Amino acid sequence: MKVQVHVTLKPGVLDPQGKAIHHALEGLGFAGVADVRAGRFFELEVADDVTDADLDAMCAKLLANTVIENYRITRV
Amino acid sequence: MKVQVHVTLKPGVLDPQGKAIHHALEGLGFAGVADVRAGRFFELEVADDVTDADLDAMCAKLLANTVIENYRITRV
Repeated sequence: MKVQVHVTLKPGVLDPQGKAIHHALEGLGFAGVADVRAGRFFELEVADDVTDADLDAMCAKLLANTVIENYRITRV
Repeated sequence: MKVQVHVTLKPGVLDPQGKAIHHALEGLGFAGVADVRAGRFFELEVADDVTDADLDAMCAKLLANTVIENYRITRV
């Protein structure tokens, strides 16, 4: 079973990578971009008996820094 | 308007970050994970008149390395 995990910075946390990308897009001449937030994306191939609690623990312990990041788990 | 961009390694491209995460998950005692692929995720806030062609160009020129990465654009 495939599982997608999105890790994003919590609202209010400064995002220097996003700011740099935003600035670079403007430098390349792209207008109309108001904001860019950078995050991470993981695709896991897991056995069917892996529970939601397991996936949650994987995210909390390894994939995301829960002090500054949120994560979202989607089974696909 | 919000736009989500997923950047993932093309199939067949070696993913050392994913391999390291996979190995770390096993080390933490999580069984049942067969594979991990790591990617990037961007959320852009753009004006309504930004075209799909513009978004495509942003991805091809800056957000993704199209030699080894695919990107997927979703307007939300």
